[in-house]
Amino acid sequence: MTIMARQFHLKSRPEGLPQANNFELVEQDLPAPERGQLLVANRWLSVDPYMRGRMTGRESYMPPFQVGEPLDGAAIGVIVESKDERFSPGEVVSHFAGWRDRAIIDAASATRIDTTIPEQAYLGPLGFPGFAAYIGMLQIGKPRAGETVFVSAAAGSVGSLAVQIAKIKECRVVASAGGEDKLRWLREEAGADATINYKNTDDMVAALREAAPKGVDIYFDNVGGTHLEAALEAANDFARFALCGMIEQYNSEPVGPRNIYAVIEKSLLLQGFVTIHNMSVWEDFQRDVTRWIADGKVKWQETVVHGLERTPSAFLDLFAGKNIGKMVIDLRDGETP
Amino acid sequence: MTIMARQFHLKSRPEGLPQANNFELVEQDLPAPERGQLLVANRWLSVDPYMRGRMTGRESYMPPFQVGEPLDGAAIGVIVESKDERFSPGEVVSHFAGWRDRAIIDAASATRIDTTIPEQAYLGPLGFPGFAAYIGMLQIGKPRAGETVFVSAAAGSVGSLAVQIAKIKECRVVASAGGEDKLRWLREEAGADATINYKNTDDMVAALREAAPKGVDIYFDNVGGTHLEAALEAANDFARFALCGMIEQYNSEPVGPRNIYAVIEKSLLLQGFVTIHNMSVWEDFQRDVTRWIADGKVKWQETVVHGLERTPSAFLDLFAGKNIGKMVIDLRDGETP
Repeated sequence: MTIMARQFHLKSRPEGLPQANNFELVEQDLPAPERGQLLVANRWLSVDPYMRGRMTGRESYMPPFQVGEPLDGAAIGVIVESKDERFSPGEVVSHFAGWRDRAIIDAASATRIDTTIPEQAYLGPLGFPGFAAYIGMLQIGKPRAGETVFVSAAAGSVGSLAVQIAKIKECRVVASAGGEDKLRWLREEAGADATINYKNTDDMVAALREAAPKGVDIYFDNVGGTHLEAALEAANDFARFALCGMIEQYNSEPVGPRNIYAVIEKSLLLQGFVTIHNMSVWEDFQRDVTRWIADGKVKWQETVVHGLERTPSAFLDLFAGKNIGKMVIDLRDGETP
Repeated sequence: MTIMARQFHLKSRPEGLPQANNFELVEQDLPAPERGQLLVANRWLSVDPYMRGRMTGRESYMPPFQVGEPLDGAAIGVIVESKDERFSPGEVVSHFAGWRDRAIIDAASATRIDTTIPEQAYLGPLGFPGFAAYIGMLQIGKPRAGETVFVSAAAGSVGSLAVQIAKIKECRVVASAGGEDKLRWLREEAGADATINYKNTDDMVAALREAAPKGVDIYFDNVGGTHLEAALEAANDFARFALCGMIEQYNSEPVGPRNIYAVIEKSLLLQGFVTIHNMSVWEDFQRDVTRWIADGKVKWQETVVHGLERTPSAFLDLFAGKNIGKMVIDLRDGETP
């Protein structure tokens, strides 16, 4: 019996904002799993802004996607067939063969998940987006009670956890996002003390100074551009900047922060980071966030898109800010074998 | 008996490049020193690029100079009259009442110097420029043997010590400066392994990649602008950037580093710093650099200008790169009382 998989390939490299025609849905017969491999049927797929970087041809912390080859990324799947004694059919695992409905994966790349938590949380607060928030806020930000923390793209999958970790650490949190519905959730559910709707703000510096009258001690950057400039302007001496993403400039000619001299003048720390270089704290992260979820201290939102064929449009919607919280693709409707 | 002092005042705030008419030489009678004070006759004055920042009206890590008030800065003077039992006439001290020939200072602000070393070294390698190099290279750069270090404005008072500390730590050093005479000194005396004459270089990225084929692990920035962009481009993963100065943009509209995203992609650390926040390591610095000078491991150059009235032009020459090593003003000729 052959098993057919449908998977998205990179058809061409995007110039500027990616378009639907940069992606192609391809049908492919899968081989039978070999010893140490699993056949999984995906239930949830993740799309994330960082994937834009892999669509350029440039070498980076992850290898670039290749034209004509399948895309990949985080996914949650159920095991259909196992050739590894550690896993059994029916178990749900997180793995990295996303952008497709079925895959043969190495068992070593699969992680069994705690099914008492909604499984797609392992693409959000318990997945790499949550891990980015955890590393950036705790390892770099090192929040102290009473400090002021500014988080951009705060309603996204990374930002929303960054906000809540800062609140757990008893900081005052200023959150920016685009749209009143996002800001309301940040204030009412995530605990943000002040919010900025950047889409209604001509002057980010003035808005941030008003929202953070005592200055900014920690900036968690998901946006870059004018947000980064405003944070440099509002920073207190010795502030820490955890640089996680710069979505404002992924699809356009980048503009550098003109007030970069503030880094010297205010003795600022700017630390860039990527999750995969910090795996030594993964277990701590899983333990802490699982407990915070159980204690009701961490909440999250999802934007759910249904059906494999909508994966590219869900990805494109990230750059229009159409997601609230984690953008996920639900493949369960009629897709499970 | 009244004692007359001649001192430079800030006559007006510079717009762009400072001009001679931003400064005014004023004669003033000094009062007699009171208990705990010293009358000093200055022998050497320091002019430094950071002073440009204090000529704007902006609050910063040091208070701005005020229009109509005297400028100040590091100086070496001999005590003429002492009203403090810890000091005696004839002793040579470093202090902060520069830009003038005589001053009444608080004894607490004076530091006796080791006169076995040329006294003006206390404005250079043993003064705040050397301290900046020491903090930036050791506390932030944390050099390991075999790493590649890039230093900009490497022939200046800060950069030249940064180069030599990196060599003491057995690194490979790439040094940039403007002019072949500076580069020759860096190679032949300071031990730089490769040099870049930025004034002859259209493409700093290409020049740095060629000079640092294994990439840059530590960047000591005195320049900003295109140097900072090139360093971001050539940086290896986990590189450390000690941001000390940005002379390229002190007199012009600043341009931000367009490739700031490299900070995330390569997990870079950018740490700004100013010397006065790091006084807890001053004693270590004095001990180490004094020993390195005695061992012949640290050399320095000076550009000496004679006469108080030339202080502003010496300051302006910093921005044209006319100094090699530390720019100092020698007041000893016929000026000592």
